[in-house]
Amino acid sequence: MSGHGSGDEVELLGIWFSPYVRRVVWALKMKGINYEWVELSFRDPKNRNRSLLKHNPVTKRVPVLVHRGRPVVESLVIIEYIDETWRNNPVLPSNPYERAMARFWANFVDQKITEVLIKLLSLTDKTQMEEEAKQASNALAILERELKAKGERFFGGETIGLVDIASSIITTWMEAIEEVLDVHILDPRIHPFLTRWRIDFVEFVEHNLPPKDRLLRFYRRYHQSKIAGVVSSRL
Amino acid sequence: MSGHGSGDEVELLGIWFSPYVRRVVWALKMKGINYEWVELSFRDPKNRNRSLLKHNPVTKRVPVLVHRGRPVVESLVIIEYIDETWRNNPVLPSNPYERAMARFWANFVDQKITEVLIKLLSLTDKTQMEEEAKQASNALAILERELKAKGERFFGGETIGLVDIASSIITTWMEAIEEVLDVHILDPRIHPFLTRWRIDFVEFVEHNLPPKDRLLRFYRRYHQSKIAGVVSSRL
Repeated sequence: MSGHGSGDEVELLGIWFSPYVRRVVWALKMKGINYEWVELSFRDPKNRNRSLLKHNPVTKRVPVLVHRGRPVVESLVIIEYIDETWRNNPVLPSNPYERAMARFWANFVDQKITEVLIKLLSLTDKTQMEEEAKQASNALAILERELKAKGERFFGGETIGLVDIASSIITTWMEAIEEVLDVHILDPRIHPFLTRWRIDFVEFVEHNLPPKDRLLRFYRRYHQSKIAGVVSSRL
Repeated sequence: MSGHGSGDEVELLGIWFSPYVRRVVWALKMKGINYEWVELSFRDPKNRNRSLLKHNPVTKRVPVLVHRGRPVVESLVIIEYIDETWRNNPVLPSNPYERAMARFWANFVDQKITEVLIKLLSLTDKTQMEEEAKQASNALAILERELKAKGERFFGGETIGLVDIASSIITTWMEAIEEVLDVHILDPRIHPFLTRWRIDFVEFVEHNLPPKDRLLRFYRRYHQSKIAGVVSSRL
């Protein structure tokens, strides 16, 4: 990590369990960019909010990438920023049509899969939970078709790209959510290509993921607090 | 408009009242691109769905830009595609940091203003309606600060850019929604810069907007169908 004031310092404000934050970690690693990790505390909202108010007063969410003192927020926006600032090992394709497709699918995964899965942990009604899980599973079937049609190891081809990074909730996070809530979302018979993709993806990012047991404990506690009606921080 | 098979034909599938579709119209006009307009019928869902199933089977929504036979969907994705394909009169800034900021604010407007305003028309409970209108008004106050800090005529500077195009619901659409629902969202005392921006924007796009009286009739009918509990198409 280059020292303070060297002119190219990169800081990443994050929280260990956030799938959005991890996306940025991988993009930085793919580019070989040194950065300083600033862990915000989920349990200390006051302290967390002070940092976020300074760097991201509008949405007060992580990840926040601070480059040369200037904050960039929202994981997909940050990834495009990283890709346009450091040109080696591109994350997005170079062709405008393929770039548009990558952006479309990344948004699709965010809206139809990632947001739905995170919302699941806040639900207390079992019927509603199963309906939402079904929605996520259906969205995965659409993504499955896209991966199959693509005919390559990753959405990005031989290496991971924007859509792969956006889809990463399908790894440890989804496994933990399925286990905590006792719902079934990814099915190897319905989603064989994504099931294979998951193994390849985890290997590609060298298991740089939140520890599953810690995530399980955290999600279980979070979900139980919802059942008990405790008002807690947004995931 | 270049003829079919000429290799560079552009088609835009849209619906007259959609603020998302109009965004693409302006981007095409800014670039001076000839295109064929394909109006889908809101009242004939069967026919509409046939066109959409062909070009946008995943989300089945307009706008769809078909360039050289290949569809691009989602208004902000389409605008970036247009900007990367036709390089004259840029819609996004060239600097990576400013590009990231433009993307952030465009998403902010979509999530906190445009989606909330469209949702308002489906609400039947007056209290909930006023709460949501208040949320939109608060988001406008945040956008107002950004425009004021910018110190220029438009978010894009002297000409309109991505954030201006994304914010266009603040024009005729918001006026119509305020009138139909009898709610107040944009306030010249709280949002003086946006109030001025609205006049400048409408002039810049040469009043290329849905006719206000037609929009009023359409929104009124749509809202009344919701009050009557009629299941109708998504706006």
